[in-house]
Amino acid sequence: MIRVGIIGSTGYAGAEIARLLIGHKDTEIKWLVSRSFAGQAYEDIYRNLFEIIEQDCSDISLKDMASGVDVIFTATPQGYLQGELTRDILDQCRIIDMSADYRIKDVAVYEKWYGMEHHSPELLDEAVYGLTEIVRDRITDTRLLANPGCFTTCSILAAYPLMKEHVIERDSLVVNALSGVSGAGRGAKVANLFCEVNESAKAYGVATHRHTPEIEEQLSYAYGENVTLQFTPHLVPMHRGILATETAKLSGKYDYEDIKTIFDKYYSNEKFIRVLKKNLCPETRFVEGSNYVDIGFRIDDRTGNIILMGALDNLMKGAASQAVQNYNVMFGFSEEEGIDMIPMIP
Amino acid sequence: MIRVGIIGSTGYAGAEIARLLIGHKDTEIKWLVSRSFAGQAYEDIYRNLFEIIEQDCSDISLKDMASGVDVIFTATPQGYLQGELTRDILDQCRIIDMSADYRIKDVAVYEKWYGMEHHSPELLDEAVYGLTEIVRDRITDTRLLANPGCFTTCSILAAYPLMKEHVIERDSLVVNALSGVSGAGRGAKVANLFCEVNESAKAYGVATHRHTPEIEEQLSYAYGENVTLQFTPHLVPMHRGILATETAKLSGKYDYEDIKTIFDKYYSNEKFIRVLKKNLCPETRFVEGSNYVDIGFRIDDRTGNIILMGALDNLMKGAASQAVQNYNVMFGFSEEEGIDMIPMIP
Amino acid sequence: MIRVGIIGSTGYAGAEIARLLIGHKDTEIKWLVSRSFAGQAYEDIYRNLFEIIEQDCSDISLKDMASGVDVIFTATPQGYLQGELTRDILDQCRIIDMSADYRIKDVAVYEKWYGMEHHSPELLDEAVYGLTEIVRDRITDTRLLANPGCFTTCSILAAYPLMKEHVIERDSLVVNALSGVSGAGRGAKVANLFCEVNESAKAYGVATHRHTPEIEEQLSYAYGENVTLQFTPHLVPMHRGILATETAKLSGKYDYEDIKTIFDKYYSNEKFIRVLKKNLCPETRFVEGSNYVDIGFRIDDRTGNIILMGALDNLMKGAASQAVQNYNVMFGFSEEEGIDMIPMIP
Amino acid sequence: MIRVGIIGSTGYAGAEIARLLIGHKDTEIKWLVSRSFAGQAYEDIYRNLFEIIEQDCSDISLKDMASGVDVIFTATPQGYLQGELTRDILDQCRIIDMSADYRIKDVAVYEKWYGMEHHSPELLDEAVYGLTEIVRDRITDTRLLANPGCFTTCSILAAYPLMKEHVIERDSLVVNALSGVSGAGRGAKVANLFCEVNESAKAYGVATHRHTPEIEEQLSYAYGENVTLQFTPHLVPMHRGILATETAKLSGKYDYEDIKTIFDKYYSNEKFIRVLKKNLCPETRFVEGSNYVDIGFRIDDRTGNIILMGALDNLMKGAASQAVQNYNVMFGFSEEEGIDMIPMIP
Repeated sequence: MIRVGIIGSTGYAGAEIARLLIGHKDTEIKWLVSRSFAGQAYEDIYRNLFEIIEQDCSDISLKDMASGVDVIFTATPQGYLQGELTRDILDQCRIIDMSADYRIKDVAVYEKWYGMEHHSPELLDEAVYGLTEIVRDRITDTRLLANPGCFTTCSILAAYPLMKEHVIERDSLVVNALSGVSGAGRGAKVANLFCEVNESAKAYGVATHRHTPEIEEQLSYAYGENVTLQFTPHLVPMHRGILATETAKLSGKYDYEDIKTIFDKYYSNEKFIRVLKKNLCPETRFVEGSNYVDIGFRIDDRTGNIILMGALDNLMKGAASQAVQNYNVMFGFSEEEGIDMIPMIP
Repeated sequence: MIRVGIIGSTGYAGAEIARLLIGHKDTEIKWLVSRSFAGQAYEDIYRNLFEIIEQDCSDISLKDMASGVDVIFTATPQGYLQGELTRDILDQCRIIDMSADYRIKDVAVYEKWYGMEHHSPELLDEAVYGLTEIVRDRITDTRLLANPGCFTTCSILAAYPLMKEHVIERDSLVVNALSGVSGAGRGAKVANLFCEVNESAKAYGVATHRHTPEIEEQLSYAYGENVTLQFTPHLVPMHRGILATETAKLSGKYDYEDIKTIFDKYYSNEKFIRVLKKNLCPETRFVEGSNYVDIGFRIDDRTGNIILMGALDNLMKGAASQAVQNYNVMFGFSEEEGIDMIPMIP
Repeated sequence: MIRVGIIGSTGYAGAEIARLLIGHKDTEIKWLVSRSFAGQAYEDIYRNLFEIIEQDCSDISLKDMASGVDVIFTATPQGYLQGELTRDILDQCRIIDMSADYRIKDVAVYEKWYGMEHHSPELLDEAVYGLTEIVRDRITDTRLLANPGCFTTCSILAAYPLMKEHVIERDSLVVNALSGVSGAGRGAKVANLFCEVNESAKAYGVATHRHTPEIEEQLSYAYGENVTLQFTPHLVPMHRGILATETAKLSGKYDYEDIKTIFDKYYSNEKFIRVLKKNLCPETRFVEGSNYVDIGFRIDDRTGNIILMGALDNLMKGAASQAVQNYNVMFGFSEEEGIDMIPMIP
Repeated sequence: MIRVGIIGSTGYAGAEIARLLIGHKDTEIKWLVSRSFAGQAYEDIYRNLFEIIEQDCSDISLKDMASGVDVIFTATPQGYLQGELTRDILDQCRIIDMSADYRIKDVAVYEKWYGMEHHSPELLDEAVYGLTEIVRDRITDTRLLANPGCFTTCSILAAYPLMKEHVIERDSLVVNALSGVSGAGRGAKVANLFCEVNESAKAYGVATHRHTPEIEEQLSYAYGENVTLQFTPHLVPMHRGILATETAKLSGKYDYEDIKTIFDKYYSNEKFIRVLKKNLCPETRFVEGSNYVDIGFRIDDRTGNIILMGALDNLMKGAASQAVQNYNVMFGFSEEEGIDMIPMIP
């Protein structure tokens, strides 16, 4: 029985991890940590879990919890974990971190985009950036897994094979992505009230969004050279879902079959990455509630561009279910254990 | 391995049954019947099921299918099944019907409210009205299960114990219910377009809605006398969910504990019926995607009324998952097999 | 030129009053008061008004403002105005209050339902409860207008003629009402986040909602005796709109024409109250953005009940546009000046 | 009194024109044409207009109507008008066409993108493409006004000044646009049902959307050379709104002030085009229900790109209110007559 702690368990991502682990084989949730709700019954905060989770929230510290669990999921604000984590803690338990604290290898890049000092840069080397399908082998033994962001998982997976094969020009990517509102978290902010986001759409974080360097870093590994791209996120009125539309200049003349063959080379054995039939565009509803990523593409001979499209559920493959997928790899479970839900529509 | 056919498999309820049976133990979906989409790949119609269901839709008839399957789910329009079903078919396979054709015992009542002749009234006697928690024992051996409607399941379960115990006055029930739009089905009607139902609310079927006699019949069995009530359904802009608010005159002086004790008497051992903590009101989101029914109540000493509230997912406990729950009882599976999903929020 | 101040101008109701008065004849907005946003440009808070309102928010007090304006709209929390208002202020300017502070004549009832002491009960006598169509004559000269609530305006207008004519039994009214989320205001509360209210429905304030005594008081005036009723509000995922569904026992045998005649007697000359064609049910979208109230009804011979339905826009006829309608009456404008917008769909 | 006919009056754009013209000075709606609803009361189809429009729908032909009106608005499917319109009709009345039939000067381009033959190419020369702010002078005397599309109005106005001034590289534009569902019209299609589009986002018409050549043609006029661009529209779950996000390579080094100065040169006197304050991004809600276009931009020094953003209401400035704006210019009304509604939130 693997003993698990979840810090930040009352945010949307943390709660989603809890929900997924309830039904998970050989897994025991030992701690549901929430500073704001310490002492309250978890089922009173997430009433969907009434009579399902009967634990209270705790405010035990990372350090105190480490010796009593096998793994800790941290669904905490940027900066929290890098301020608390030590080698000593990692000697006692493994960490799956939902924040960006160990996602970016270059401390200077982290500090520039996040506007804060990094307090444990010595741990960055052993952190593995957990895009499961890309780096599965390195996940097995890691003690510190940096779980990828929602926009990034979607944007990277849709472009990865073509970047790797140099089918698209290195710096030509324009990524426009749409996000559901749950990506903004559960904090009480006017900007996220129903009456402020419903029936409206907007871009935000234009030229400054923190997922930019994360996407660039991973695609640079794929390409083999430093990649620069334009990333523009948008907020649209739905609960869940990321849709990334990526426009790139093709590096040569390619037709549908050429591109399909490349995608198949990388993804045909991946259960959770579905490359759609010809000319179909992904829709976020078709992956909602699941660990799937749907990918479609279209070549425009008129412009010489390819338009890549990826869709995933930001709280699932974009956060919690990819975290559990990584947990499965780390602890030797079947990779789909506990996360093989079928997308539910409507 | 139980062999299953689904007629009407491309409507929302039929597709939900398909989705639930994919992961179901010892169950094989033999036929996905759809007249409109015969010959098309099911995954092209429900693209959430891409690479999950790889069958085509068929237009095989009920009669031809009967000998090759153990059970047929009929998610078909009112009147279809009663026009097709025969004793001969029932000798070959069992039927779980999502329509109202065998829900009402009195043919005259059926014909009045549904405005059509009943062509197989001789089968009404053996039909069991499948509110699982209420008539579990009679479901085991039935060959013809009339699966309850969404409004009715919710309205009946919230009032059943109090009607049975004569705690509320017989004819005092005023049931106001809200429904998500999926209850209106997948037909291409202007009235159900996004731009016609979003951002609006309305009552409909006032004084004439067909679920009225269904609720009355079942509550009459509970009360032991004929019950008359006022049922007013409303459409609200959400995908899924039924919320029933039932106002009734208390037959005497009761306090919270009295009522709670009665609810517990009937439901405390029922996994899928959750009577909420004191003063909490059910919300449809807390049961979405699950087989749960949440029930709350509040006594108003000022008026002498009790306000009962029930919430369920109209496509799950209000249709498909209750059908699978009944399937489980009929075929000796664990009652929660394939339907123990945890409600997902947001 | 009438000089106007708005206190609480950055809440949804206050902002709506500002929007309506911008285009209003012979009206000058002198003060936009907001404690939270004092000193900020109003167009930065309500960016729909960019380049339309070029004033800053102020935090001038009620008392200091009184001498420089002709009328003050107070869109303030319960309890604010009754704690600040004095005869001296009323000698200087007139007040149109959006809160409940002067709506209920009986101080004891106010204090019981609102759980606070009333600090200016001596002003209650001169306050006029501003249901424009019902008490138009008394509005002309009042100095203190208590603008009705959203649920109440809708619930009262739909039942008023039948109560007045004793067509329905005095204490038989069961009012179930649905509200859009803007009714909950613009405060930063988790409960009103998009991800908490979208795709869900719930009842709230069951047996305890403060609009109950307000509806009862006005219908008591209509009936001529004290009326008791059950009022149950619900929250549904839309921006605007109140839909009230009222079930009442008819006091005798009435047919459609009887009831229609009564409604016509009271409302046929009222532009803003539309009694729908036979058997049509009001929908909130058909009044959105306007000052209209739509009313429909249906008699159920089976139960002896009548079901009354009313729909309005909670921020318009349920708040701001009724306030401006009253302002028009008070200051001798045409009653529809500035509020004759046509409902906009979709 | 200008006499007006509206053909296609029961679609969303046609109904919006009707709504705007009800309150319009010196304007009489003579005909509300709808083949599907001929003979029915308009207020029964658009119940928001109950007791406001008391005309019936007619099926009078374009030809028969021409002699009795001064202007006809055609909110008809692509291909209708170019098949019916003649010089003879234009001698009798003026036409404001909402379709694409006379928007594209090159018949070959029209026929390629629309897949149909053009039957009146001889009229293309006198047609004026009605982006009011750009070609105001030429609108005054035109008899045939081609009203621009929703995506195109938004995409062109956001990029026009910079293209005109060669500040961005000619073929570098990547336009990603989001549309509300009303853009898909009022036809009864499964794809536009609430349960199919709510809570989801998708791209569509990728590399093939018909607004592409329309945007390219107008921006080519601005640039002075043929412009090629990538246009990718998306559907998001809201009623109204277009948000265009346009990424372009800057042709040199420009800072905020440089760009702002250029926008001001073209738009500072335009009431309905609002260039936002520095770093603000437009949101569709801030223009909903109005004729405004909001424009924002951001320079990314890291990539050398500028990101332009435009927002408008697709049924208003993207269709009906721009049509009325053009009507105002054509008939000598104040340009804002009947369309100066203030955007309404929430």
